Amino acid sequence: MAVVVKNTPRTDHDLVDLLGGFGVATIHEAQGRTGLMASRLRPIFRPVRVAGTALTCEVAPGDNWSIHVAVEQARPGDLLVVSPTSPCDDGYFGELLATSLVAHGVRGLVIDAGVRDIAELTTMGFPVWSKTVSAQGTVKETPANVQTPLVCAGVLVHPGDVVVADDDGVVVVPRMDAARVADACQKREDNEHEKRARLAAGELGLDIYTMRDKLEQRGLRYVESVE
Amino acid sequence: MAVVVKNTPRTDHDLVDLLGGFGVATIHEAQGRTGLMASRLRPIFRPVRVAGTALTCEVAPGDNWSIHVAVEQARPGDLLVVSPTSPCDDGYFGELLATSLVAHGVRGLVIDAGVRDIAELTTMGFPVWSKTVSAQGTVKETPANVQTPLVCAGVLVHPGDVVVADDDGVVVVPRMDAARVADACQKREDNEHEKRARLAAGELGLDIYTMRDKLEQRGLRYVESVE
Amino acid sequence: MAVVVKNTPRTDHDLVDLLGGFGVATIHEAQGRTGLMASRLRPIFRPVRVAGTALTCEVAPGDNWSIHVAVEQARPGDLLVVSPTSPCDDGYFGELLATSLVAHGVRGLVIDAGVRDIAELTTMGFPVWSKTVSAQGTVKETPANVQTPLVCAGVLVHPGDVVVADDDGVVVVPRMDAARVADACQKREDNEHEKRARLAAGELGLDIYTMRDKLEQRGLRYVESVE
Amino acid sequence: MAVVVKNTPRTDHDLVDLLGGFGVATIHEAQGRTGLMASRLRPIFRPVRVAGTALTCEVAPGDNWSIHVAVEQARPGDLLVVSPTSPCDDGYFGELLATSLVAHGVRGLVIDAGVRDIAELTTMGFPVWSKTVSAQGTVKETPANVQTPLVCAGVLVHPGDVVVADDDGVVVVPRMDAARVADACQKREDNEHEKRARLAAGELGLDIYTMRDKLEQRGLRYVESVE
Amino acid sequence: MAVVVKNTPRTDHDLVDLLGGFGVATIHEAQGRTGLMASRLRPIFRPVRVAGTALTCEVAPGDNWSIHVAVEQARPGDLLVVSPTSPCDDGYFGELLATSLVAHGVRGLVIDAGVRDIAELTTMGFPVWSKTVSAQGTVKETPANVQTPLVCAGVLVHPGDVVVADDDGVVVVPRMDAARVADACQKREDNEHEKRARLAAGELGLDIYTMRDKLEQRGLRYVESVE
Amino acid sequence: MAVVVKNTPRTDHDLVDLLGGFGVATIHEAQGRTGLMASRLRPIFRPVRVAGTALTCEVAPGDNWSIHVAVEQARPGDLLVVSPTSPCDDGYFGELLATSLVAHGVRGLVIDAGVRDIAELTTMGFPVWSKTVSAQGTVKETPANVQTPLVCAGVLVHPGDVVVADDDGVVVVPRMDAARVADACQKREDNEHEKRARLAAGELGLDIYTMRDKLEQRGLRYVESVE
Repeated sequence: MAVVVKNTPRTDHDLVDLLGGFGVATIHEAQGRTGLMASRLRPIFRPVRVAGTALTCEVAPGDNWSIHVAVEQARPGDLLVVSPTSPCDDGYFGELLATSLVAHGVRGLVIDAGVRDIAELTTMGFPVWSKTVSAQGTVKETPANVQTPLVCAGVLVHPGDVVVADDDGVVVVPRMDAARVADACQKREDNEHEKRARLAAGELGLDIYTMRDKLEQRGLRYVESVE
Repeated sequence: MAVVVKNTPRTDHDLVDLLGGFGVATIHEAQGRTGLMASRLRPIFRPVRVAGTALTCEVAPGDNWSIHVAVEQARPGDLLVVSPTSPCDDGYFGELLATSLVAHGVRGLVIDAGVRDIAELTTMGFPVWSKTVSAQGTVKETPANVQTPLVCAGVLVHPGDVVVADDDGVVVVPRMDAARVADACQKREDNEHEKRARLAAGELGLDIYTMRDKLEQRGLRYVESVE
Repeated sequence: MAVVVKNTPRTDHDLVDLLGGFGVATIHEAQGRTGLMASRLRPIFRPVRVAGTALTCEVAPGDNWSIHVAVEQARPGDLLVVSPTSPCDDGYFGELLATSLVAHGVRGLVIDAGVRDIAELTTMGFPVWSKTVSAQGTVKETPANVQTPLVCAGVLVHPGDVVVADDDGVVVVPRMDAARVADACQKREDNEHEKRARLAAGELGLDIYTMRDKLEQRGLRYVESVE
Repeated sequence: MAVVVKNTPRTDHDLVDLLGGFGVATIHEAQGRTGLMASRLRPIFRPVRVAGTALTCEVAPGDNWSIHVAVEQARPGDLLVVSPTSPCDDGYFGELLATSLVAHGVRGLVIDAGVRDIAELTTMGFPVWSKTVSAQGTVKETPANVQTPLVCAGVLVHPGDVVVADDDGVVVVPRMDAARVADACQKREDNEHEKRARLAAGELGLDIYTMRDKLEQRGLRYVESVE
Repeated sequence: MAVVVKNTPRTDHDLVDLLGGFGVATIHEAQGRTGLMASRLRPIFRPVRVAGTALTCEVAPGDNWSIHVAVEQARPGDLLVVSPTSPCDDGYFGELLATSLVAHGVRGLVIDAGVRDIAELTTMGFPVWSKTVSAQGTVKETPANVQTPLVCAGVLVHPGDVVVADDDGVVVVPRMDAARVADACQKREDNEHEKRARLAAGELGLDIYTMRDKLEQRGLRYVESVE
Repeated sequence: MAVVVKNTPRTDHDLVDLLGGFGVATIHEAQGRTGLMASRLRPIFRPVRVAGTALTCEVAPGDNWSIHVAVEQARPGDLLVVSPTSPCDDGYFGELLATSLVAHGVRGLVIDAGVRDIAELTTMGFPVWSKTVSAQGTVKETPANVQTPLVCAGVLVHPGDVVVADDDGVVVVPRMDAARVADACQKREDNEHEKRARLAAGELGLDIYTMRDKLEQRGLRYVESVE
């Protein structure tokens, strides 16, 4: 009953790369604090940042067959997003699959499960965000959906959405929102640039953001230490 | 109903730096195996060691407003200690707040919650021990206590206590105990120095610590393998 | 009631080193996906790989006394395997014990509990796989079994079994199976070598492994995107 | 930036009640093993089973304001589905909100966070599935979306979808699929009825499902015990 | 180095019982959302509610010796509060210790660790809140502090403080605050009584609490469904 | 490569029932604090106690095929012990399999994974200890070993060993040790009987077990409260 959807649309590459210029935290803020995957997904090496278009792939528990199916659907600039149909920590992915993905232009992997061969993946510079590291292998008995919408680490991902991942985690930007979010990121970064300089000079956030009145209204009181 | 206590006393800087010369494990042992924060707090980069006087700060769940309040209370040599009033893994702290803290002489952060911008914090060399890494931002709606005693990762911390943190974790030394503990640390280290040389030469701990009789009394038996 | 078994047999060193030339994932696959310890065991530094003969040691919760007992039973080429008799995250092991083990030729530590002094252990290059890092010290009141079979992180380990550990985790090869498994590893690696070249050239796993017919039989369907 | 969508369509009540006649496990199987929320959601009392139309409600961490907003959108037969915008275990919901929901015909609550007043909720017979129980209260400072699609415990839920929950967990049936899934459930239950009788009479599943040949093909071997 | 403090003061019994008339959630709110132990502490049977004066007791990991010491310090109306000096899930407490505590008038147990004999404790009606259930026994080798201040499940507890526990969890009221908090609880309950009636009659919280204007100011918008 | 071992020996039924007369905590103590499964295994209803001979069964992740195979090997008085070859929380077992097991005289289930249909299993009075409850179904593609030794929740189990489970957890008694352990349990229970009466009469454990001298030697000091 599994399905592979062919020729799904991708976000424009220029937009992907533009978003990739911003960090995950900035993008998450800029799109209204949505789209952030659960913090259990961590990179296998640091520092790292990558952006790509989602190549989505479900996997059965302990079964990585559909990842092989997904490789054929890959296009340069994709980033593979794998979610198990029930929670599983097995090592679904290793050096051979990474070699195959690289040959097809895939930029990295986000997986809500385990990976292995992380020494080799690190040497290759193939970026991976995973729930865990495990040498536990998988079987090839049950295919699952490829290039259909899925929920990965708590976030709905459609094929072709933008996925940006760095040391802080993984964020998804829906394809239709990419231009708007990139613009909001730029505004946010411009604003932070000026704030950073003032903070570095010792000015207080309390003053820069004029928080003192609001804090008083919310009941904050100052007292002297009696010690 | 939140309170900021101003001008709380700090432990003397010389004592802080003296304690900072010892590792967390040594200090923990030297003060009778107390004061160690839960091991869920991990550094964002390694190796690292820092010591400072506690600048304590509570935060509401998903709300980092009081960290901005805390910056104003900072003094050079402080180390910011942040504990949420209920468990929360959001990314309360990032590069801008670190920039501000550095400008006021704060040496690092210990937080029983999440942080973000860890690539930038690592580049800055700003040491952080946190429960997790998360790009999830926070709001500024609910102030909380600053420079009051709090429980962080299972340990009671008073403003001005000594906090030492390294690759192994975080330990708190009460202000009044700092001199005594520093002295006990030195004695422990002197003792270990001699033991290390004997162990490196192949002498057994069983003999150095004269454990054999006590082990026999506690029922330890030796048998030959029958394989 | 604790027992120390003396002079237990070890796997032949040449076999140990032969197995050590393969990674944990390869060995795990080659012996039929058995013997892999739970993925909660992680190395304190990376990259790392080591192989040794199991020197087994139980410990009481919060009590590392039997590790001192185990050192006396060590032989060059051993790898210490420590399992608590009930779950415990304390820091059972640090730099002094490592110094002692190195003096007796022990190659590393696998422990389903906590360790400390990880900065020093890293500097020494002493490899450790542990469940957690904790500065929490232990007492010496209750001896436990040394060189008896034990379950560590879900795997039965007999003294003298081969333990191989790397960035991916820890795997145990029973002494009697070592030669057969080493042989199976070599076959597997030879096979992967050829596959890797074909995958790197862009050939699909679907074709290399002739999966297409079987996938169709299992109900996989391909559809065109309608977007 | 939060939105409330008014007058969203609901699944027909007869279909909801028809689905409510089947258990969660049956529905999950009948719709192809999809739609099951993470098993961390557990009922506060047992046995229990309820079905309703999803009244969806996001909440900020530690902030239950939007639940008050959601009550106004409730219609008889709804089941409230609450998901925090970042993980939080606070007690968002208690007896007063339940009293209000009951007055508007809401049948129960599914929440990927904490609840409190569980003694009172149990006495009222108000069914709740939650991630945890916590007396920790929440604030009312940050509104969030009501009656928009959300991801709850790993499952995408649209307003008006069918939610069925029992001792085994929580499953979501998309509004458009409800009739088809109800039909598949009935077929599955009819089939199980006959199987149950044969199994109770001692017939083996190996024979009923004619598994023996396939098991042999997959390599299963039978050997006699040599003990 | 362990200490037993004798004849520590207790909160007045009438105040304890007055507080025991309120639930944990009410008390937690009434004292400004402080004093709540971590939600990992759960009762072994439900429904249950008890209030008592804290009889504090530290225990070494895997060692319940100091609980025996604590029994001698018990007075009628006490509630035993046990915290391990490092995290441990062993079963520190069972039927025999409960029998002993009952004989000395102790009303229940709060323990941030494991308990056993829960069938017998349930039959006895002896209330226990614990982190887990485990049959794993403990040794008696290392004494720890009794009737000193300790941190239990994240909350600082002084001997003689009021501890109230029910289905929702465990809350601590400092001895000096008991009268004030009891008064605040009564006010809160009176207020809720009136609100409950209005909510049960179908009035909306939005109106009762006059939230509509504030929600609009915070940006909440209402839109019609377009489906 | 999976194997079914036929006609493995069982522990004598009288011994099994004799051991079943003791609780898990007593047996665990009586055999020297060994054989206790991890406390994550919890019963689906309480109170409950059962004893049986282990019918061991491995399962692939997300695949319950071998449970069907195991049923054929069952004998009256067996208790099914299921362990996945890699960690998995799916619902491997439900009412139909229980119906089949009951027809063959199996007394219950211990599984280091998930179960479903717990309302029906509770109504049937079929005792189950599991890691979790999940409606997530499984496939039948990969057979695994039946009636071979396995590690379940950290304990090595041989077919035919005695498994006793109650509200406190699950303990395994090796077949060859059953008589000796039953005898030790009886002695322990006789001893506790007398102690219970003295404790109920208010006598202190400190005196019954003559602990005072030893506590003093270990450094316990008594001081008066200065409050």
